[in-house]
Amino acid sequence: MFLTSNPQLNKNGELHHLLTIEGLPKEILRQILDTAESFVGVTQREVKKVPLLRGKAIFNLFFEPSTRTRTTFEIAAKRLSADVINLAINVSSTSKGESVLDTVANLAAMQADMFIVRHSQSGAPHLIARHVSEDIHVVNAGDGRHAHPTQGLLDMFTIRHYKKDFTKLKVAIVGDILHSRVARSQIHALTTLGVPELRVIGPQTLLPTNVDNLGVHVYHDMAKGLKDVDVVMMLRLQNERMQGSFLPSPQEFFKFYGLTAEKLALAKADAIVLHPGPMNRGVEIDSTVADGNQSVILPQVTFGIAIRMAVMSILAGN
Amino acid sequence: MFLTSNPQLNKNGELHHLLTIEGLPKEILRQILDTAESFVGVTQREVKKVPLLRGKAIFNLFFEPSTRTRTTFEIAAKRLSADVINLAINVSSTSKGESVLDTVANLAAMQADMFIVRHSQSGAPHLIARHVSEDIHVVNAGDGRHAHPTQGLLDMFTIRHYKKDFTKLKVAIVGDILHSRVARSQIHALTTLGVPELRVIGPQTLLPTNVDNLGVHVYHDMAKGLKDVDVVMMLRLQNERMQGSFLPSPQEFFKFYGLTAEKLALAKADAIVLHPGPMNRGVEIDSTVADGNQSVILPQVTFGIAIRMAVMSILAGN
Amino acid sequence: MFLTSNPQLNKNGELHHLLTIEGLPKEILRQILDTAESFVGVTQREVKKVPLLRGKAIFNLFFEPSTRTRTTFEIAAKRLSADVINLAINVSSTSKGESVLDTVANLAAMQADMFIVRHSQSGAPHLIARHVSEDIHVVNAGDGRHAHPTQGLLDMFTIRHYKKDFTKLKVAIVGDILHSRVARSQIHALTTLGVPELRVIGPQTLLPTNVDNLGVHVYHDMAKGLKDVDVVMMLRLQNERMQGSFLPSPQEFFKFYGLTAEKLALAKADAIVLHPGPMNRGVEIDSTVADGNQSVILPQVTFGIAIRMAVMSILAGN
Repeated sequence: MFLTSNPQLNKNGELHHLLTIEGLPKEILRQILDTAESFVGVTQREVKKVPLLRGKAIFNLFFEPSTRTRTTFEIAAKRLSADVINLAINVSSTSKGESVLDTVANLAAMQADMFIVRHSQSGAPHLIARHVSEDIHVVNAGDGRHAHPTQGLLDMFTIRHYKKDFTKLKVAIVGDILHSRVARSQIHALTTLGVPELRVIGPQTLLPTNVDNLGVHVYHDMAKGLKDVDVVMMLRLQNERMQGSFLPSPQEFFKFYGLTAEKLALAKADAIVLHPGPMNRGVEIDSTVADGNQSVILPQVTFGIAIRMAVMSILAGN
Repeated sequence: MFLTSNPQLNKNGELHHLLTIEGLPKEILRQILDTAESFVGVTQREVKKVPLLRGKAIFNLFFEPSTRTRTTFEIAAKRLSADVINLAINVSSTSKGESVLDTVANLAAMQADMFIVRHSQSGAPHLIARHVSEDIHVVNAGDGRHAHPTQGLLDMFTIRHYKKDFTKLKVAIVGDILHSRVARSQIHALTTLGVPELRVIGPQTLLPTNVDNLGVHVYHDMAKGLKDVDVVMMLRLQNERMQGSFLPSPQEFFKFYGLTAEKLALAKADAIVLHPGPMNRGVEIDSTVADGNQSVILPQVTFGIAIRMAVMSILAGN
Repeated sequence: MFLTSNPQLNKNGELHHLLTIEGLPKEILRQILDTAESFVGVTQREVKKVPLLRGKAIFNLFFEPSTRTRTTFEIAAKRLSADVINLAINVSSTSKGESVLDTVANLAAMQADMFIVRHSQSGAPHLIARHVSEDIHVVNAGDGRHAHPTQGLLDMFTIRHYKKDFTKLKVAIVGDILHSRVARSQIHALTTLGVPELRVIGPQTLLPTNVDNLGVHVYHDMAKGLKDVDVVMMLRLQNERMQGSFLPSPQEFFKFYGLTAEKLALAKADAIVLHPGPMNRGVEIDSTVADGNQSVILPQVTFGIAIRMAVMSILAGN
C-alpha cells in the first residue's frame, strides 16, 4: 500500500512532511485537494480566519528570496490563526558562518511547529526534514530544480476545478522543462492522478535528456504538441536562462514557444491556460492569452492559498 | 452634491479609496476626523485593540522605503485586529520583471481586502485603484510629489484638536512646497475645511509656479509670512534637494527659512508648530522650537495612528 | 535594600527596564528565573499562547542585525499575545538623518509599550531608557561590548535547571572575554547568585586588563582552568577578531582554547557545556562536544524563549 520508506509519511502512512509529489499516494493528493476545497469557502467569508493552528509557530525559512510564494504561505498561516515568523536567511546567521542545520536546530529549539523552506539547492528541505525532531513538519516551498510541491498541488486543484476528471485529459506542459522544479512537480502529480496523455513541449536544449522516462510525450513543435489538449501549462522562462547557449533570444523563444491566441486555437475550444507566475509577457505568453477568457492564472493564485492552508492543517493534524 | 466622477467615492458617495484629499467633500473629511477621535481613546486603553477588521488582510505595498509611515499603518491595522502583510517591493517580484499591475492582480487574487500603497511615482495608487476589483480598497501612503492624504488628515486632526474652529485660522506652510506631497494634501484639506487665510512661505525656487491658483498667499519672507498666524506647518527639506540649483546650502536655508524661537515669536503667542517628520534639526527647524512647548510634533504622530485606524475602518465598512 | 539610584528599577524597587545584570538584586534575578519556569510549561503546550500582553505593542528595535536574537524576542512576544513590530533601523529613518532619540520619540508617540533594543554602541539602551516616558519599558538585547542581560539570564536558568544550587559550583567562562557582552552579563549574574568559584580562561590578549576586579580567577591554560569545574561556558569568537593582533589564527586558537572531548574530560564527569551561539565549530568548540551528551546548547535556546517571556511579562506587569 503505502511506501513506508517514504520520508514524507509517518508510520500510519499519513503525510508528515511535504517535500515532493514524487512517490505520494493518490489518496494523499486527493486528501489535500479535498481539504483545500473546504478552505476556498473560508477565504471568501467576511472573517477569513479559522482557529485550527492557533498558537502554532510557523517559520518561513527562505534561503532564496521569493516575495510571492512567501506571501502566500504567510497569508495561509495567518488565516489558520498561526503565528508566523519570516526569516530571510543569509543576512545574519549564515553570514556569521552558521550551517543550515545549526540554524534549523536552533529554530527547532524555539519550539517551532513547522518550517516552510525555500532553498536554491535541491534536497535542502529533505536534509532539514531528516534532522528535525518528530513533532516538527517541513514543507518544501521550492528547492533548486527539484520540486515545488504546493505549486504542483494548486495546479492540480485548478485543473480539477475546471475539468473535474483527470482520467480524460490531454495536458501539455510548455517551455523550460529542464530547469523547472514546477514542471517536475506537475508531471508527478498529473501522472499519479491518472492523466492518460501528458505532453511536454520545448526546444531540445530545455528538456531533460531522459524526460520520456517520466511517462510523457515529447514535442518540439507547438502546433503538434497543443493539438486537442484540454490543459496548457505554461512555465516561466528564467531570466538567467535567456542568454548563453540555451536560447538564441527571448524574441526567438516567443516566436516558437510563446503562447499566442493563434497557437492556443489549436487546443480544444474550452482548453484552460495555467502559468505559475510571475509571467514574462511577450516571452513565454502573449498578453491577449494571459488576460484572455481561457486563462485561469489568477484563480491559480486564489486556490494556492487554500492549498497551502490544506497542507499546513493536514500536517499539523497528523 | 457629491462628485460622482470622483474615483475615491462609491455610488453612494461614500469613501471607497483614499487617494488624495483634493476633491473630497468636507463631510467626508469631518467623518474621518470624528471617527479618529473615537480611536484616540482606544490607543490609550490597557488593551489597545478593537476587533473591527478581524480576518481582513491588509497589504502594506511599499515600492519606496519608509519605516515610519509603514509602521504607523502596521500598528493601526493591528489595533483593528487585521492581518498585516508587509511587502517591500523591488526585492523579488519586480526584479523578476513583473509589472506593478501584475503584482497587484496577484495579491488581489490572494483575497486582499486593502492595499496601502507608497510609490515614488505620482499616480501609482490611482492606477492600482482603477484596476482592482470592487471589494478591494486602496489607500495612498504617499505617491511622488502628488499626495499624502493620511498625513494631511492627521495634520487637520492636530489643528482641530488644539484650535477647534478652522474658519477662524491663519495658517502658514513653510519650506519646500514645490517637491512636497505633504504640502499639497495640507493645502487641499485646509481649503476644504474653510481656513480663511492660508499662506505659503518659501524661496521662489521651492514654490510651484502657479501656487496662487490653489487659493494661497505667497510669501518669501518669514517675518511677514509668520505674522499673527495661529498654525505654523513646517515641511521637511529633502536631502536630495539640498544640493544643486534649488538651494545655496542648508545653512543658508536655515538662516532664511529655518524656524527659530525668534521667528516663531512673530506668530500668535499660542501658535502651534507642526512638522511631518523626520526633522532635519538645524536645517528647517531649530531644536529649541522642535522640543519647545508650542511644538505639537509628537502629538501629530499619536493622532496619526488614530487617523489611519479611522480611514481603514471607514473604508472596510463602506 | 534596593539601589534606588538604579535606572532599571522603579520607586518600589521593581524592575522597570532590563538594561544590564550589573547591580540587579538577587531577588529580581530569582523572580525572573522563577517566572520563566512557569513559561517553560506554556511553550510545551498544544496552544503555546497566553493572553498576558494582549494589545501591547512591542517594538524590536534592531540597529544591528541579529536574526537569532530578534526571532527569540518575536516568538516570546507573540506567545504572550502581544503585537510585535520589527524595525531593522538604518534602512530608512536613520538614512534620512534622524537621530536615534528622534526615532525613539516617534515610536513612543505611537503608544509603544516596550522597546527591545540591540545596538552596536554600548549604552544605547540606557540612553533610550532615560528619554522615554514612564509607561514605556526598555529591554537591552545586546549593546556593544557592554551587556546582553537576557542571554546572561537564560544561561543562569540553564545552569539552575541542571545544577540546582549556584552556591556549590565551580564555573569557567572560556574564550574572548574582552569583546564579549555575553561574558560581562554572565559574570555579574553568577556573582550575584552566589557562585563561589568563577574562572575565566583565555589568552592575555582576549582578557580585559583588570578582569580580576570582577571577582574572577584568571587562567591562560585550559588544562588548569577546566580542572574540576561543574559548568563550562564557551564564548563565540567573533570573526572580526580572528585576524590581526588579537589572535595568530583560528587553528591556533582551537589548539589552545577550543573545547575538545579531551579537554572537557578534565572537568567534572557531569559538567555541562554552554554556548550562546552561533557556534564556530572547529574554532572555539569541537563538534563532538557541541553535539555530545554534556552539551546543553539547544536547551539554552528553548529556555531563552521562556526567559524573554518572563522579562517582558514582569516589566509589563510592574
